Formats: sequence, C-alpha cells, structure tokens
Amino acid sequence: MRATLMYRAGDVRVENVPDPTIEQPTDALVRITRACICGSDLWPYKLLEPLEQARPMGHEAIGVVEAVGSDVRTVKRGDFVIMPFAFSDGTCEFCHEGLQTACSHGGFFGVGQVGGAQAEAVRVPLADGTLYVVPGAADAALMPGLLTLSDVMGTGHHAAVVARVAPGKTAAVIGDGAVGLCGVIAAKRLGAEQIILLGRHPDRITLAKAFGATDIVSERGEAAVERVRALTGGKGVHSVLECVGSEDAMTTSVGIARAGGVVGRVGVPHYAATPLSQQAFYRNVTVGGGPAPVRAYIDDLLPDILEGRIEPGRVFDSSVSLEQVPAGYVAMDRRKSIKVMVKP
Amino acid sequence: MRATLMYRAGDVRVENVPDPTIEQPTDALVRITRACICGSDLWPYKLLEPLEQARPMGHEAIGVVEAVGSDVRTVKRGDFVIMPFAFSDGTCEFCHEGLQTACSHGGFFGVGQVGGAQAEAVRVPLADGTLYVVPGAADAALMPGLLTLSDVMGTGHHAAVVARVAPGKTAAVIGDGAVGLCGVIAAKRLGAEQIILLGRHPDRITLAKAFGATDIVSERGEAAVERVRALTGGKGVHSVLECVGSEDAMTTSVGIARAGGVVGRVGVPHYAATPLSQQAFYRNVTVGGGPAPVRAYIDDLLPDILEGRIEPGRVFDSSVSLEQVPAGYVAMDRRKSIKVMVKP
Repeated sequence: MRATLMYRAGDVRVENVPDPTIEQPTDALVRITRACICGSDLWPYKLLEPLEQARPMGHEAIGVVEAVGSDVRTVKRGDFVIMPFAFSDGTCEFCHEGLQTACSHGGFFGVGQVGGAQAEAVRVPLADGTLYVVPGAADAALMPGLLTLSDVMGTGHHAAVVARVAPGKTAAVIGDGAVGLCGVIAAKRLGAEQIILLGRHPDRITLAKAFGATDIVSERGEAAVERVRALTGGKGVHSVLECVGSEDAMTTSVGIARAGGVVGRVGVPHYAATPLSQQAFYRNVTVGGGPAPVRAYIDDLLPDILEGRIEPGRVFDSSVSLEQVPAGYVAMDRRKSIKVMVKP
Repeated sequence: MRATLMYRAGDVRVENVPDPTIEQPTDALVRITRACICGSDLWPYKLLEPLEQARPMGHEAIGVVEAVGSDVRTVKRGDFVIMPFAFSDGTCEFCHEGLQTACSHGGFFGVGQVGGAQAEAVRVPLADGTLYVVPGAADAALMPGLLTLSDVMGTGHHAAVVARVAPGKTAAVIGDGAVGLCGVIAAKRLGAEQIILLGRHPDRITLAKAFGATDIVSERGEAAVERVRALTGGKGVHSVLECVGSEDAMTTSVGIARAGGVVGRVGVPHYAATPLSQQAFYRNVTVGGGPAPVRAYIDDLLPDILEGRIEPGRVFDSSVSLEQVPAGYVAMDRRKSIKVMVKP
C-alpha cells in the first residue's frame, strides 16, 4: 500500500510499504477514509534529525474495519470507526479512570511496530479498547467533524477540561491553530462567558469568532499579558488553554491566569522546565494537561457533532489526496492552511 | 512592647518597638497569647541580606482582641481569635471563592506597615475578614492545635486539597517538617489509603506514623522515586504534597506522581522554573498550590481539633518565651526542634 514516511526535517514522502496485517489477535485492520496532518507533525517536520529508518506519519483517522483478530469482540468487519491517536486496552485502571493515554498496554501510532494513519490502511492494536464504532450511517458532510474526534477536537476539549472551564467563567485560548480553534469550541460548549483568543492570522480569527471567541488579542509577550488583563478587569482569566507548546506560550499562560486559575496545556512542551514557577505559586495558579485521552471524550462530544451543535470539522480548510500529502505539510508549515485533510 | 526583628541572616533580636495602635477603622489590636516560628521564617534566617530597617517577624498567632476600630462589626474586645497568616477583607470575589491569600485588599503580616506576630501584640488589618472568633471557652490543652489553624495545619490541608487527596487514593508527603506532618494529618483525614512520608528524622517519622503515615521513605533523589514506585505497584501516587520548596523536592514530586496525578505544593518555591515539565506533560501530571487560604479552612478543621479527632498541636515539640525567640530560631534551624511555640 501507499503510506507517508518522514526521513528528516522537511523530507516527507509517500511510498510503497508492505500492507499491514493482523499481527495480534486483538488487532484490527482499518481502511482509512479520512486522515489529516497534525500541528504536532510540524515539530519533526522542522526538527527531525535524519533517520536510518523513516518514520511512518499520521495518527488521526476515521475509516472502515476490514478485518479483526480472533480476540476482538466489540468491533467487526464493516464497522465505521473513529481511531483515537493513542491505542489503549480499555480495561486497565488508567483506561477506567478515563486516562487512556496512560494505558498500561497502550501506545501511539507511527511509533515502533505500529504504522501511521497518513496511509491507505493501518493496523490498530487493542482494537476493542481503541476504536470507537460510529452508530448508524453518518452523512458525508459530517466526516470532517468525526475526524476531529480522533485528536484535535478531543485535544482542545482536554485543554478546557483541565483548565476547568465552567459556566460564567473567563477563558483564554493561546494559539490559533486547529487545536486552539477547537479549544474555543470547547470553552464555548462548557459555558465560558468570555473567550479570549490569542492569535494573529485573519482567517483563523474569523473562524475563532464564528466558534465563540468574544475577544481577540494579537499582541505577544508582555503586551499580550497586559491586554488580557485589561480585558478582564485587571484580574486575568480563570482558565487558560495553552495550545502551542512553546516556552513563550507558557510564560504568557501563567501571566494571564487569574489568581486561583488553571492552565490546561495540550501543546507538546518544547521546554524543559515550566517558567514563572514562583509567580504561579504566589497566585495559586495550577498547570496541568498532557496528551488528551480523546477516546474518553468521544461519548460526550459525538452527539454534538452528529446533531450539528458544534462544527469542529471547519478547521479543515483544505484537503489533499494521499499522494499530495507532502504538499499538505508545506501548506501547514507555511501557515497557508489551518489543517489539511487527507483523502486516501 | 517587645517584638521580634530580623536584621539579616542569622541575626534575630527581641527589642522594644512602639505599641501597635488602631490605624484604620477596620483594624483590631490583638494581644498575642501564643505565636510560633514558621519553617518559612528559616529561609530569611539563612539568606536575608542586611536590611536598613529590620523586618518584624512572625505571622502565626492566637490571642485576645484588645480593641477594634469603629468599622469593625463581627469581632469585639475580649474575643479569643485565630489570626491567619494573611489578612483579607472577606468580601472581595477572591475571598468569596475561598482564596483569601489573593484578597484584593489583603496582605501579609510582617510586611510594610503591618507588624509581626512574634510579639506581645499585633495590629490586624481588615479584622472582620481576617480574624476567626473561636466560640466558647477553649481548654488550655487545645491552644497548640488552635494555633496551627493560623498557618501550618491549614497549609498542610491546602497541599492535600490541591493534590486532590480522596478516599482510597494514594498520597505521598515530601518533607517531615511541621507542614509535612500536618500534610500527613490532612491526607489521613481526607481518606487516603496509603500515605508515604519522605523524610529522615527519627522523631518526625515517629510523629508521622502516629498521624497516619503508612510508609516511610528516607532515600533521596532517584532512589526515593524508585522506592515510592516500588511501594505503589510501579505506578506512583495519586497525590503528592510538596512541603519543602526546593527544586530537588519538586523533581522528586513529579517523579513519584502517578499518571494523571497532582502535586500540591505549599513549600515556598526556591526555584524559578518547575522541573521535569515534559515528564509531567506526557503523564498528565498537574502541579498546583501556593499560599494556603487558611482562613477558608478553619470552619472545616476547627471542629476536628476541638473534638480531638486530629492533634496537629503535637508538631510543637518545644516552647519559648518571647525573649527566648532567637534561641528558638537556632533550635529550628539546627533541626533540634520540629516547631517552636512562643508564649509572650
């Protein structure tokens, strides 16, 4: 089959690879109908050192089950499924607690012996725990929205949950990428009264406003902190959704959090130590977050997508064929596209 | 009156100072019956640069109200009161949220124009919001316990609350000082099933066990992390109460937290950035905490002290007169005493 491989920073290729097969009795094979490129794929696209063995790319997908191993019970051939970006057994204590990204037997796509999702098909380990079967027949127009449940919408939601967004509270979202935009949706959905987006790209700002952002702050650094404070009576916001992962973004996050507030971070941190530790302490600011247990959130978010109450699929502003995936990386890296959908 | 002043690291003196007076109509004057020396007083005792104007010391006290300003409504002359280490108006939105240490009009004792509590008397700003009137006549044997509500017991409780200690959960307490020991009491009181104390002083370990510690880890650094993991089936603990404030203590805290766990830190951080930020992220470990809103916790903790269900007063293993306060600093600094009570 055809699949996407990254050889080093800036070098992404679509090549022939062996067809995936059922290797474990708990595996499923999924024929991918939609995949996409993640903001987190851009980090290796910028920084990856040359590899001996190229890395399979892609960890977000929806598709149709083609085959299942002999121990698979709840997923069957022909099911239309959402594939969360992490696989998980669904039975360990972490899965029971709703933290599938810490599953005792889990892992991530595109790592080790597990392939990527920017491909024609993928082997899904621990299929019963991992895959979410979408009930009924979903309309084609809903595909982009369903695809976001494999990562980006669940990740924005995780930021909001960790940051304890609640009715009547104030929230700020740092980052106008696809995760940040989904963070705006999540903050609105959880009842935030004021949602301040920190971003500076006109097309993304337009979408953020459509999703529920009440204020836009395009300054950076200390000027951004001052602006958010001015917008919140000098106090800062209850909830910060940190959707970037840079040290500057975290510094701004702590700076704009209100005393007693929470920063929910979902951008993969590209810093070794969390800045402004003393400032956070003296103001009782909490910092949490990590890889989103998106599997846990599908039950909650799916009805809102199926019934059109939220439209996270709008973050996809372009789509490519599998052969065009390298061009998709270029478009996202150059900020010409918010998020690129892949139609194998 | 006589009061304690610190001139520089290692230089603490008891001297004559002007008697405090009612300066604002919201003030009260409190004659101090018991005060104490705080672990946080040891930081300037080690590090304070020479000052032009010596710093008044002490922020924990119980005592009797001697006079109140014309606007004071709920506190009256003769009331026996607990004085939290921060003053607060009790009416701003932070106070209403139970975060009195972020009060819009609040502040701290021993700072600016507000004196310290290692003295014969103290002016208490915002008396209605700050002071907690103890109902009825408290037995003399309860005085040490009541005194802990001004800081140390409320601070240990804050660590436990932030760290989300709950019935059946596992907890670790880093630090065998008075705050750590109160953290053990708080973790036990909130239902933790396993309470691991990280400490190495035999007298403190004995007390920790009496308070409910189920395991003691006296190793440090990576060895301590391994030991805690071994005690928790390899997973680490749900709740870490960080009661020290050093970078090493925070590194250990993140290392021993279970995936999805929370570090509640109450030791004043002597580091600029929180270490192991990526490790915390990948395991969804949350770090929170700060100056404890002890005023908010008195309602909850007082009955348990009055009825003898918890005995945090046992952290006081020695007491001194006001004139002997400098010797008290020496005893605590040399770890000859866990916590020194002051009887003016």
